Amino acid sequence: MKAAILVQQKAPLAIAEITMPDKLDVGQVLVKVHYSGICGSQIGEIDGAKGEDKYIPHLLGHEASGTVMDIGPGVRHVKAGDKVVLHWRKGNGIEAPTANYTLDGKKINAGQVTTFSEYTIVSENRVTAIPADSDLEVAALFGCAVTTGFGVVENNAKVKIGEAVVVFGAGGIGLNIVQAAALVSAYPIIAVDLHDSKLALAKEMGATHLINSSTTDARQAIIDLLGPNGVDAFIDNTGQPKIIEMGYELTKPQGRVTLVGVPKKGNNINIYSLPLHFGKGLSGSTGGEAIPQTDIPRYHQLYRTGRIQLKNLITHRFTLDQINEAIDGMRAGTFAGRCMVVMDQ
Amino acid sequence: MKAAILVQQKAPLAIAEITMPDKLDVGQVLVKVHYSGICGSQIGEIDGAKGEDKYIPHLLGHEASGTVMDIGPGVRHVKAGDKVVLHWRKGNGIEAPTANYTLDGKKINAGQVTTFSEYTIVSENRVTAIPADSDLEVAALFGCAVTTGFGVVENNAKVKIGEAVVVFGAGGIGLNIVQAAALVSAYPIIAVDLHDSKLALAKEMGATHLINSSTTDARQAIIDLLGPNGVDAFIDNTGQPKIIEMGYELTKPQGRVTLVGVPKKGNNINIYSLPLHFGKGLSGSTGGEAIPQTDIPRYHQLYRTGRIQLKNLITHRFTLDQINEAIDGMRAGTFAGRCMVVMDQ
Ligand SMILES: [Zn+2]
Ligand SMILES: [Zn+2]
Repeated sequence: MKAAILVQQKAPLAIAEITMPDKLDVGQVLVKVHYSGICGSQIGEIDGAKGEDKYIPHLLGHEASGTVMDIGPGVRHVKAGDKVVLHWRKGNGIEAPTANYTLDGKKINAGQVTTFSEYTIVSENRVTAIPADSDLEVAALFGCAVTTGFGVVENNAKVKIGEAVVVFGAGGIGLNIVQAAALVSAYPIIAVDLHDSKLALAKEMGATHLINSSTTDARQAIIDLLGPNGVDAFIDNTGQPKIIEMGYELTKPQGRVTLVGVPKKGNNINIYSLPLHFGKGLSGSTGGEAIPQTDIPRYHQLYRTGRIQLKNLITHRFTLDQINEAIDGMRAGTFAGRCMVVMDQ
Repeated sequence: MKAAILVQQKAPLAIAEITMPDKLDVGQVLVKVHYSGICGSQIGEIDGAKGEDKYIPHLLGHEASGTVMDIGPGVRHVKAGDKVVLHWRKGNGIEAPTANYTLDGKKINAGQVTTFSEYTIVSENRVTAIPADSDLEVAALFGCAVTTGFGVVENNAKVKIGEAVVVFGAGGIGLNIVQAAALVSAYPIIAVDLHDSKLALAKEMGATHLINSSTTDARQAIIDLLGPNGVDAFIDNTGQPKIIEMGYELTKPQGRVTLVGVPKKGNNINIYSLPLHFGKGLSGSTGGEAIPQTDIPRYHQLYRTGRIQLKNLITHRFTLDQINEAIDGMRAGTFAGRCMVVMDQ
């Protein structure tokens, strides 16, 4: 089956036919992938943001939807025929061994969940069943973008009714952070990004104020709106020290800075720690601390009843063969919303 | 100055001219009252819900708006001329001694805040300044109904996006619980009450489903909507054991029952405690754990920018002389929304 493989950092993925193992191990689930999102963290992996990658060659991707084709011994939470969301946060079920894929007899590494392939063998605890009639393209977003974005607001930043929120970076996760901030009635919700197309989407998602930081001094613009220390929750999706430090400065004495974007190795922040003694918060998010088995049905219900917007977040679609185009476009920041890899149905 | 005085349990309040002390003590604030809400807990006090009342005769009332006329020594957070909310939760400033009112030379007791009088001497930490151009009638609701209702959702029940909420009892606080549940995008939001007029107001506030428990079996109706254990957050405003026990039964294994209504003395609940070991929550609210100095400005901003509804919650207005009519009507449950005592301006 066809897969996109990371064979070298900072290079295009190789598209190749790889071989799957003959049988499933305990806790493994074979899934036919229908849609896979591409998340900023895959761009980080490809570009080596965290440094050297000792698992190369390996598979990639961590948000998708699919159909369960077969299950390994011990799997109890899904069965063949189930429509599922593939996610990287741990849910119900077994943490299974990773699958042994090969290419020309050589091993291709993979984690407990990968999604840039026509089929994938994942750990039971990385799939969550959804209703059979779900929109499977939107469902892919529940693997990371939605659950992370909403979880950041609910579990990390703990945004309250009427609090002032700044969302710095309006990518797939940032847009869902904006949407979740609107769902909990934060005000104002200030979205900052380098691209007007992303800001336009942020406005659709509920941002009340937009700042294009390529043309405007974001720091001054936030101060103009809220005063020098007026932010309740500053959420960084960039991983850039200067932006994190700005957020730390602009938050209230009891405000919170939540770090979502992954900083490049060596990119340290420089802050005065005393305010942390007196109630200022600085913490990182791990996928919004999302709990797939409870969060996915909860958010999915809101989508099905028309209470949240997700379809408009998917602005670009590619085949698996075109995945490097998608990655290049994401790196350049030119896509407004999420890129979706549409597998052969 | 004129005041309404509790002189005997289960009897009308006495309306009389009482005498204020000549000078203010440390931390005391003299306020001219403009509007005072009447809260269910005053009905409870009058009717002796908690048993014998050893402070009789005493003043009553705990949500109001007014203008500061004078301040005692040490007061720093408000000054003469400030428009203020009077609240019973402790905010910024001094916890002052209570004031010595007299009637015909006999002492009339009062707590750190009372509001059923033309003027009142309150503790600095029971007043919070608001902008001079605020709607002072609506502002009174920030003393209890709004801050309690919103706080119950944010701090006690900790309602999340898309959770299923039941609000049992749609009085002044219950309606604000419904509104706050809507503000955090709970779904469904099921309001239960004995009176269609209150349910109609609950619908305006964002309830998605209404149950009139005088004509419908509420337990069965909730099960029909959510299944036998489908409630994430059950919020009781009645204090009635049968209703609390029902909520405990209908919540999910990880659901929460939040107790807001004050139970009558001797009205015990009877529950199987084992589910508490496995994640079910049962806890009481103390005024939504509201923090006046941060919560009032935060919610007030939402009102000023048109993001929450409060004016429509005030459905009946009375003079101080008419206060017993208001109390009788509230006891009968015939008023849809909040009763407001409008003092002479
Ligand atoms: Zn992701
Ligand atoms: Zn009250």
